[in-house]
Amino acid sequence: MEILLAKSAGFCFGVKRATQMAFAAAAEYSHICSLGPIIHSPQVVDKLAEQGVEVIEQVENIPAGAVIIRSHGVTAGEIQAILDRDLTMVDATCPFVKKAQEYAARLGAEGYSVVIVGEAEHPEVQGIVSYAATGQVLVVANAAEAEKLPRLGRVGIVAQTTQSFENLRQVADICMKKSRELRVFNTICDATTVRQNEAREIAQQVDVMLVIGGYNSANTTRLAHICQEILPDTHHLETAQEIESSWFTGARRVGITAGASTPRWLIDEVVSRVAELAGK
Amino acid sequence: MEILLAKSAGFCFGVKRATQMAFAAAAEYSHICSLGPIIHSPQVVDKLAEQGVEVIEQVENIPAGAVIIRSHGVTAGEIQAILDRDLTMVDATCPFVKKAQEYAARLGAEGYSVVIVGEAEHPEVQGIVSYAATGQVLVVANAAEAEKLPRLGRVGIVAQTTQSFENLRQVADICMKKSRELRVFNTICDATTVRQNEAREIAQQVDVMLVIGGYNSANTTRLAHICQEILPDTHHLETAQEIESSWFTGARRVGITAGASTPRWLIDEVVSRVAELAGK
Repeated sequence: MEILLAKSAGFCFGVKRATQMAFAAAAEYSHICSLGPIIHSPQVVDKLAEQGVEVIEQVENIPAGAVIIRSHGVTAGEIQAILDRDLTMVDATCPFVKKAQEYAARLGAEGYSVVIVGEAEHPEVQGIVSYAATGQVLVVANAAEAEKLPRLGRVGIVAQTTQSFENLRQVADICMKKSRELRVFNTICDATTVRQNEAREIAQQVDVMLVIGGYNSANTTRLAHICQEILPDTHHLETAQEIESSWFTGARRVGITAGASTPRWLIDEVVSRVAELAGK
Repeated sequence: MEILLAKSAGFCFGVKRATQMAFAAAAEYSHICSLGPIIHSPQVVDKLAEQGVEVIEQVENIPAGAVIIRSHGVTAGEIQAILDRDLTMVDATCPFVKKAQEYAARLGAEGYSVVIVGEAEHPEVQGIVSYAATGQVLVVANAAEAEKLPRLGRVGIVAQTTQSFENLRQVADICMKKSRELRVFNTICDATTVRQNEAREIAQQVDVMLVIGGYNSANTTRLAHICQEILPDTHHLETAQEIESSWFTGARRVGITAGASTPRWLIDEVVSRVAELAGK
């Protein structure tokens, strides 16, 4: 049984940076927590907990010491609350997410109606929204939702960093029709697109596809859906322990990829387990 | 023979305003000229000449007195030269063109690479270009030309007022890919689109189509081409004198439209002449 492992599987730049910052902070501070899970990987969050990093959901529940800001960011209000409480802040917000927050803030301050292309319920989007909140803020998931927007004067667009360019383009086209002035900040990080494209290519060449990553990870779930559309024999899993040997009956090739918040060691464990089953 | 006359035939808002201002100025000033033909209608320019409005192409050749700025605008340098010479300026620039000039100036001053969607050789575009000229200015006619643009940082787009929205949209889409920030001012005046759409509808219902307007008028020429694609029996003419009775042999319906710089009286003369031939 041959294994095709995606080159783009695993940590993206922002997640890698945040994880490194979190482990370094855990070594530096005796009292440390993260505001919400630092990345959408329960296994990494568990490892950090072993180093003393507790996950706390509300700023008011942080006892004292240092607090790590997760890779996909928090709201402007939460940052302010941390500063007000004089806690030590370790800001591990992905620089690309930070850019999106800054652009949203600027657009809001300059009087634009701010349109955020993304999933309204995703914490990254909620963070971006909070920065734009001086004016009118509208979150749209896609072209169909953009069509429902009213006629607007000056529109500024910012995208959730994991959106596809095609989706941003479609929303921008509709906003161009509905506005006198349109300003688009292309805040998309192409790591997501690169990973999705590679997963598509691999899924077309294999008999079974494994997508590793947190069940709470939006980008992993999306990645699994994309592969499933091409290959019904796709499995979304968090760890090697979930692998069932029956998945590979008659399979000659297995494809493996992983979401942006999946650490290398989880991927390696899955590869080893599959190789072990292949050897039997 | 039935005549279908387009509702949208003839003067657009900017041309009507410029013509009225020119005739009023001719009555007010004893020494008056226009910098370039005020509109692209030789017949209107002739009527103005009868009122003493001379067409002068260069500011330095204006002897003295008042100068009318044509509907589609002039360059920033020409405006400055007029002000420097202390001539009286009657600014008949279409307010929509003026907006495009202002947006181009603002984008240039704010450090954007300015992309102007339009025909590089059209005086309106040359005027807009001159206002943006503090920074990088690029004129692109269509998507194919936009594809040739290099990768750009911050891009601001302004359109020639007579462009189609579809063309603006296509160029904007390409610039969105090539830039970090895109700003689009939708400076299109939809009079052109309305006129073209109505011409298309009429051309489909008639046996002969007449398109009236200056041979030097870009919008009239484009209008004639659009009709010709639908109906080869389309004639572009400037005046009723050019009509040939042979055009209508066997025709049951005749469609008539006119460009944005064609005055009502020229349209009326054509309608009368066609009606006369129909009566024979």
